[in-house]
Amino acid sequence: MPAADVLAPHALPGFARSTVDGYAVRAADTYGASDGLPAYLDLAGAVRMGRPPEVAVPAHGAIAIPTGAVIPDGADAVVMVEYTAETMPGTIEVTRPVAPGGGLVHADDDVPAGGMLVPVGRPLRAPDLGLLASAGVVEVAVHARPRVAIVSTGDEVVPPETTDLTAGQVRDATASALAGLIRDAGGEPVYAGIVADEKGALTETLRAAVADADLVVVSAGSSVGARDETATAVAELGEIWCHGLAIKPGKPTILAECGDVPLIGLPGNPLSALVVFRLVGVPLVWRLAGCESPPPAPSTRARLARNVPSQAGRLDVIQVAVRHAPDGGCSVEPLHGPSALLSILARADGYLVVPEPATGLDAGADVEVVLYA
Amino acid sequence: MPAADVLAPHALPGFARSTVDGYAVRAADTYGASDGLPAYLDLAGAVRMGRPPEVAVPAHGAIAIPTGAVIPDGADAVVMVEYTAETMPGTIEVTRPVAPGGGLVHADDDVPAGGMLVPVGRPLRAPDLGLLASAGVVEVAVHARPRVAIVSTGDEVVPPETTDLTAGQVRDATASALAGLIRDAGGEPVYAGIVADEKGALTETLRAAVADADLVVVSAGSSVGARDETATAVAELGEIWCHGLAIKPGKPTILAECGDVPLIGLPGNPLSALVVFRLVGVPLVWRLAGCESPPPAPSTRARLARNVPSQAGRLDVIQVAVRHAPDGGCSVEPLHGPSALLSILARADGYLVVPEPATGLDAGADVEVVLYA
Repeated sequence: MPAADVLAPHALPGFARSTVDGYAVRAADTYGASDGLPAYLDLAGAVRMGRPPEVAVPAHGAIAIPTGAVIPDGADAVVMVEYTAETMPGTIEVTRPVAPGGGLVHADDDVPAGGMLVPVGRPLRAPDLGLLASAGVVEVAVHARPRVAIVSTGDEVVPPETTDLTAGQVRDATASALAGLIRDAGGEPVYAGIVADEKGALTETLRAAVADADLVVVSAGSSVGARDETATAVAELGEIWCHGLAIKPGKPTILAECGDVPLIGLPGNPLSALVVFRLVGVPLVWRLAGCESPPPAPSTRARLARNVPSQAGRLDVIQVAVRHAPDGGCSVEPLHGPSALLSILARADGYLVVPEPATGLDAGADVEVVLYA
Repeated sequence: MPAADVLAPHALPGFARSTVDGYAVRAADTYGASDGLPAYLDLAGAVRMGRPPEVAVPAHGAIAIPTGAVIPDGADAVVMVEYTAETMPGTIEVTRPVAPGGGLVHADDDVPAGGMLVPVGRPLRAPDLGLLASAGVVEVAVHARPRVAIVSTGDEVVPPETTDLTAGQVRDATASALAGLIRDAGGEPVYAGIVADEKGALTETLRAAVADADLVVVSAGSSVGARDETATAVAELGEIWCHGLAIKPGKPTILAECGDVPLIGLPGNPLSALVVFRLVGVPLVWRLAGCESPPPAPSTRARLARNVPSQAGRLDVIQVAVRHAPDGGCSVEPLHGPSALLSILARADGYLVVPEPATGLDAGADVEVVLYA
């Protein structure tokens, strides 16, 4: 992500260039030319690719020029080879007129000197890399990737590499999955460890994370008690903006600010945590990475295959499978199930949102599905 | 990209888990319970997070359990704490019945032992990483990134880091931009150098590239002569499938096979080269990376602001800017100009395709725009 606008050190392409194979001419010398009454021009030489022209175009003269070569002095247009013939050696017959500026681009048509090559805060895309290369800009100052600390909590949570689990233990799924979303959004995930549901330990871990990171994400314990402890620990370090979102899944989300570091307390189960982080955390990571308007997520419109119930007064995020029909259309199958099951999210092709006031969506409705890339 | 299906080494979550805070019970003990006629159960203990239960649920008994903890033996449901009260110490009043299986997930509800964790050939997404972590799978065999050799040709082309240009020279924009597209598609770009428009040199460079890479991309010279030389050199090394596509920009594209290595000869100017590579090359890179169905590109439907002329019998790829209206709608502005200007592509938010039989699109038409991420 460029940290500042990058301006062109010189005009691009830098010289007037032919855009066709043909003859550089004075446009006025071709006026009125037609198949019946061609203009006859004297062949005055040829321009070679990658070289400065050796001669200028005289009045009633023409210089052979390939696509991409330098327009010689004296010429203001290039007539395409298709509309010419060298009927006698040294004489070019032109059967169609060309307007001034025809068949060429000017020295600053691509980007003028000092013009914008790439703007601040927009991820560099392939054509940007090309434009920078054209201008000889091979280094660009970029935003540092924001460091996003991931704190996992829960007496039951053990590291993914744990081979033997005792009954009741689960491996930390949320941290690895969050790291994936953070990387996709241009951030650098930092695993800050797994903390037991014990306020003192959590406060210390959060304090260290806040000091080190640009954003702190806590996957709170899943039980009410563990969630309360997370909220208490966060309140000690900063200001809680909201505790609870009118969204399903994701209700017990905490949004807080600790000094100038934002903190997101996510629900305990991985599916809910990922749904909330995608909606709330990912745009924040983009912004911390210096990007005001993140690239749009892919989406599609399709027909809902079954009714989706919902409660008014909250946003429902429904995981869906998208089935492509042989006729090119596609239908959307809601994937229901307890949000304790991460496999639902892994199976989903995307999600749809039932807006807050709606009490559900009917089968057959035309819905917008945000697709997982 | 996983090189094989990854199966679950054991069931997930691995034990029956509560999905609510409440009491583990025998569902039959709660049948008929209501506010007026509660069921009374004996509190027989509590399950702690992350620990095996110490006692089983006896008939007419209840064991306190937090969300995520292990369902104790004897229980087949969990009644939510909201529908209970401990009116007398040691006695739990239940005011709503729970069905068998209510308030819990079974040991194999997420993924059964041997079930699919992540399928071959689909890029790993965030929930996949979570599911793998849950299962303790911390290493996955993946496809090697396909090596894509980029050969630049043209007497006028010099490396991007060249500081002083002489008139007629241009820096190589295409190679850097192609490298971006290749990386985005999961490939590894390999710069194979800039070759002058001289058949012997080109043949040698192509031969080396074919021996080294999984896909070879040549940005052919822009003039007719240079393009012909590229075609001749390619024909010496393999079989040309097609020379010329009914597409604008991009007509002089070459598709060939050299041994078992596909080769794409791209038009000489960077904009055309990138348009063609996005349509033809990017899906090929995905496929060589082991992915049969690449993730969809983001797209949107919007209203065309101006007429777009086109010729029947070819596909027209039109670069567009997307303007968001205050009412939430958006309109699509075609960006016209010579394809010699890379800045048009850099300014574009996406592109639209005028299908082959159409002779243009009218202002006001509802069009599908593929967005640049």
